[in-house]
Amino acid sequence: MSLTTTSLTTTLPALPAFAWALVALFAKTSLTSLLQVVSRARAGVFPIPEDARLMRGRHADDEAPFVRRCANVWRNDTENLPLFLALALAYVLLGAPVASAQWLFGAYVLIRYAHTAVFLLGLQPWRALVYLSGMAVCWAIAARVLMLAAAHVGA
Amino acid sequence: MSLTTTSLTTTLPALPAFAWALVALFAKTSLTSLLQVVSRARAGVFPIPEDARLMRGRHADDEAPFVRRCANVWRNDTENLPLFLALALAYVLLGAPVASAQWLFGAYVLIRYAHTAVFLLGLQPWRALVYLSGMAVCWAIAARVLMLAAAHVGA
Amino acid sequence: MSLTTTSLTTTLPALPAFAWALVALFAKTSLTSLLQVVSRARAGVFPIPEDARLMRGRHADDEAPFVRRCANVWRNDTENLPLFLALALAYVLLGAPVASAQWLFGAYVLIRYAHTAVFLLGLQPWRALVYLSGMAVCWAIAARVLMLAAAHVGA
Repeated sequence: MSLTTTSLTTTLPALPAFAWALVALFAKTSLTSLLQVVSRARAGVFPIPEDARLMRGRHADDEAPFVRRCANVWRNDTENLPLFLALALAYVLLGAPVASAQWLFGAYVLIRYAHTAVFLLGLQPWRALVYLSGMAVCWAIAARVLMLAAAHVGA
Repeated sequence: MSLTTTSLTTTLPALPAFAWALVALFAKTSLTSLLQVVSRARAGVFPIPEDARLMRGRHADDEAPFVRRCANVWRNDTENLPLFLALALAYVLLGAPVASAQWLFGAYVLIRYAHTAVFLLGLQPWRALVYLSGMAVCWAIAARVLMLAAAHVGA
Repeated sequence: MSLTTTSLTTTLPALPAFAWALVALFAKTSLTSLLQVVSRARAGVFPIPEDARLMRGRHADDEAPFVRRCANVWRNDTENLPLFLALALAYVLLGAPVASAQWLFGAYVLIRYAHTAVFLLGLQPWRALVYLSGMAVCWAIAARVLMLAAAHVGA
């Protein structure tokens, strides 16, 4: 049993780095949801009829600009976070070194927090630059995943 | 070889609980897609032109209320399921105990089925309460993930 | 240490197949983003105000039909790819045989590339048929996941 536990700890040394990055990103999306709910309640316009009744607001599709920004942040996160998480986990399972994983996952988390901030504040060309940085980190992980997968097959 | 198989079974005891929860959630999203396709065909309004031609319906963006509800369920699932799945898998990989995983994953699956039901039926404040319950389960998993990750590093 | 590495290689023989499928799907979504950005810039209509200012275009919600097609491809991918990735990874972790994983994951990747192509070209009933093929592959993986999970518990 103790041997088995040791195996996992030594074969997946970057697993804690993945865990921290994942929870940090989950915290970010939880904050986005909170921000969206609060700003929608303040605007008093609800695209779903029972929400309008519950909050005694107006039922309409023309949400306030900031509420739409929150929805845009969420849509961008649904497009990007699952692929990052899958790439990061594949990297960990293929035996990613701790330092490399900490650097790449940490950079991605910081970049996505920055992306959310500049998206909510409406800052261009910063949003484009930050978005491309996040993509660069994902492709850096993808390249390492392919190299380790190739070595894995050859082993 | 048999030793190796034993390793995986003993190091990842909660993997079957993850597998069942995943397939149960996949079944839920498959049902949502089916419901959306059927209700869109009945309404006869299609936002994509070639779909309108194929189904001999009207090409327009004003989808029927129930079709929009199905789209809302899907959007909510794309925002929430990938993060739950990543958290649950991280928990399993960090050596989650079977009972804890079965309880947390099972609760989440039931809560998300209930969320879909109350969203389609338009029931508030139930949808808000069920949504927050799902978030509470995810944060309970996240807390355990962080604790196990911290122990993992210290080991 | 060398024993440990051998364990992972022998217990998760299908991990490289997952890695290749994941990177292939990530490449597809990266191409979709590129196509969306380029076609939006050509159309000159931007739903986000700071993007319109940056690109000296018009700020409006009525995006060009092809830009909307790219958004539809992305939305369909956010609904389907995370669940496929989770199912494929669960299959790998439960000890999927290499040949089965290569066949199922490879088929899914080809099917999703075809789905994107027919969605962008507006071809029906091909899109419906290709979509259902992708769902069939996912359910084939799900069935294998449940069988392995059941064996895992019994072991």
